[in-house]
Amino acid sequence: MTTDNELFDPLFDTRFKGYPRTQAPRRRSEIGEAGWHVLAGDLPLPLAVLKREALEHNLAWMQARVRQWGIDLAPHGKTTMSPQLFRRQLDAGAWGLTFATVTQLAIGVAAGARRTVIANQVVSDEDLAGIQLLLRAHTDLRVVFLVDSLAQLGLIEGWAARHPQSLPFEVMLEIGVDGARTGCRTHEEAIALATRLRESAAVKLVGIECYEGQGATGDSAADTAYTNALMDRVEAVARHCEANQLFETGEVLVSAGGSALYDLVALRLKPAIGGTVRGLLRSGCYVTHDHGTYQRLQVAVDQRMGCECGESLRPAMEVWATVQSRPERGLAIVAVGKRDISFDLSMPVPIARAARGALAPTAVPATWQVSALNDQHAYLRWDAADEALAPVVGERIGFGISHPCTTFDKWHWMPIVEDDYRVSDAVSIHF
Amino acid sequence: MTTDNELFDPLFDTRFKGYPRTQAPRRRSEIGEAGWHVLAGDLPLPLAVLKREALEHNLAWMQARVRQWGIDLAPHGKTTMSPQLFRRQLDAGAWGLTFATVTQLAIGVAAGARRTVIANQVVSDEDLAGIQLLLRAHTDLRVVFLVDSLAQLGLIEGWAARHPQSLPFEVMLEIGVDGARTGCRTHEEAIALATRLRESAAVKLVGIECYEGQGATGDSAADTAYTNALMDRVEAVARHCEANQLFETGEVLVSAGGSALYDLVALRLKPAIGGTVRGLLRSGCYVTHDHGTYQRLQVAVDQRMGCECGESLRPAMEVWATVQSRPERGLAIVAVGKRDISFDLSMPVPIARAARGALAPTAVPATWQVSALNDQHAYLRWDAADEALAPVVGERIGFGISHPCTTFDKWHWMPIVEDDYRVSDAVSIHF
Repeated sequence: MTTDNELFDPLFDTRFKGYPRTQAPRRRSEIGEAGWHVLAGDLPLPLAVLKREALEHNLAWMQARVRQWGIDLAPHGKTTMSPQLFRRQLDAGAWGLTFATVTQLAIGVAAGARRTVIANQVVSDEDLAGIQLLLRAHTDLRVVFLVDSLAQLGLIEGWAARHPQSLPFEVMLEIGVDGARTGCRTHEEAIALATRLRESAAVKLVGIECYEGQGATGDSAADTAYTNALMDRVEAVARHCEANQLFETGEVLVSAGGSALYDLVALRLKPAIGGTVRGLLRSGCYVTHDHGTYQRLQVAVDQRMGCECGESLRPAMEVWATVQSRPERGLAIVAVGKRDISFDLSMPVPIARAARGALAPTAVPATWQVSALNDQHAYLRWDAADEALAPVVGERIGFGISHPCTTFDKWHWMPIVEDDYRVSDAVSIHF
Repeated sequence: MTTDNELFDPLFDTRFKGYPRTQAPRRRSEIGEAGWHVLAGDLPLPLAVLKREALEHNLAWMQARVRQWGIDLAPHGKTTMSPQLFRRQLDAGAWGLTFATVTQLAIGVAAGARRTVIANQVVSDEDLAGIQLLLRAHTDLRVVFLVDSLAQLGLIEGWAARHPQSLPFEVMLEIGVDGARTGCRTHEEAIALATRLRESAAVKLVGIECYEGQGATGDSAADTAYTNALMDRVEAVARHCEANQLFETGEVLVSAGGSALYDLVALRLKPAIGGTVRGLLRSGCYVTHDHGTYQRLQVAVDQRMGCECGESLRPAMEVWATVQSRPERGLAIVAVGKRDISFDLSMPVPIARAARGALAPTAVPATWQVSALNDQHAYLRWDAADEALAPVVGERIGFGISHPCTTFDKWHWMPIVEDDYRVSDAVSIHF
């Protein structure tokens, strides 16, 4: 693992996509002083940028919500894998951080996380050993991971038996939904597993967990019913475990949370089970939000919470690129593709344009849309009625994304920009 | 840019996904001596690996084909963006390398490429300046990029007028297809542009180019007709340019090439136009091939070329991952997702399994398939008849990919393995 300075203040150079080709390498902390402006052409396109104001708004807004709900935030680090954003989340008041893998966890710990969740089943010797290594190196570190089967518990106990000096692993029991991802499908299965977890010296059961995000439809009545049914099951298992002293902790963790129904689960994360409960929301995408899937789902969240449009989460990520060809009527080819921008949930959304030389963006016609992406190209199309407003070769187009995770993993750094597109800071990204 | 040693022999450490967590950092050249074995659990999963024998076979096979066809290979570097693979391609006899962006080009030049193609329209000041910077730094460097519009030529001429000391840019005229990507749609448009290119002091027209890959259907009669129609147009433009002395070169480049119809275009890359012609094929995916889209398309290539199955390209990339949960009948959740493996053209293909502790893989039932991917999870399903052969928690599964480009860009390194999964070398990857 690198030193702290290398992690938080790495050196960027021209090997990093988007770094100015005529500039000497600079440390992250020196980027803001360089005086670069995205629309002045100081950085080659395509370029993914984070908007400082929206980012800071989102960090504060989500933290205020969990405070209001009386729960805590352990944001999912897999979204950004950025040490600087991890620090901002912790500084904003996050209880801890969540990760998907032990490799991600190690980077999070190096970035200062001390209360951590791996929102996944850990099963392999290499991963169990990796967690022990971190626990030994940082005596103030907590790592809680998920268990959903006796088979998994058997693997953990086998590893622990071969490593008798190991510390017991803190685990949460995962409750799942038929047809969805991981987690126990029935109450009986969950109780049987919890009972075995209590008996095992290799693990300590410290909480109950679920992931509700896969059920999101955007229809609030259906989503509310779905979430409540799932959280009823979580609560029943938690209550049974508390009543039967299956938890080995003074404070039971109850955790859920994607970025689609987080307001609904939040209200259910502090069930009255008799003992002390800490509710943990794990949303990750709120940091940058998006112009696609999460923006659509947030409409329902806003309605449920009574938020005005723009009060809640704001899209904080844009990818800018150059029109390289106008080969036929109604089609522009833009130099940005699958290597640069998300395409897994929906296509990039054209949100702004800047003529060659223009330092400020303007709006784009509503009919503009990206119909397809190749590895390095986007197909931008518009209705015939907008032909007079068609983009021209050399013009810059700004795209919103959907969803954040799969744009972050295509970049090793991103500049942070002010609303006028001056570069004021930067983050590094570790996938 | 880094020094050569850092580029070819970088230091890998635990920040790199898949690097052993208990191992000290090692330079790439030291990886082979470590004695690691993928199935012994020496490297944490998920892990993308390259198979040495298949890789070397593919490099040699494709080079032998272009020699046989009397043309040259300028493989597309965007597929792998790996300096070590670039060097292997050049050592195998490639004429040069192709790139999609100037940032990619700069890494290729640092890796030793001296004859290069940017298979894209270059239009921005930053990119034009970036090419000049490289040309000034390497007097033996050739960079040829694509032009398809007067608008683009206008931008290049504007830049050159503002930079009177600049060298003329070498360009190829791109011929395109209605409804497809970039390139001139008509003969008249192409000729008019070629004539203007000849008059311009900012550029030198050195060839004609097209990209046929978008037309691939897998139906050989249709694909042959499509390719011949396109190459007829390329040839007609090339002949006109030669007859009218529009080329400013002693050797005209005629270039095409994706990885689907390469055998068909190859036969048309040395048209008799009166002058000296160098045919340039730009295929990129042949290096690793795949178990999905390109494997399917290769069936038609093999039939046309009269190859026996296995004689031609072989899949050289696999991604290994661990089963983390068996939450319900007919479903296993495997710890590998969109962050690790391609999903853009088709889902990963389960090709092998290795029980916990097993050092050799075995075959998987034909009904196994990945039905979906989340960011960090794969949904592996099978027919009820195969329930007795179902994967178990902790078992390792090997996946083939489709297509190579979008797996390469998710990793910063990949170990190279022997057929028995011992790690014998590694490559670095620069996205």
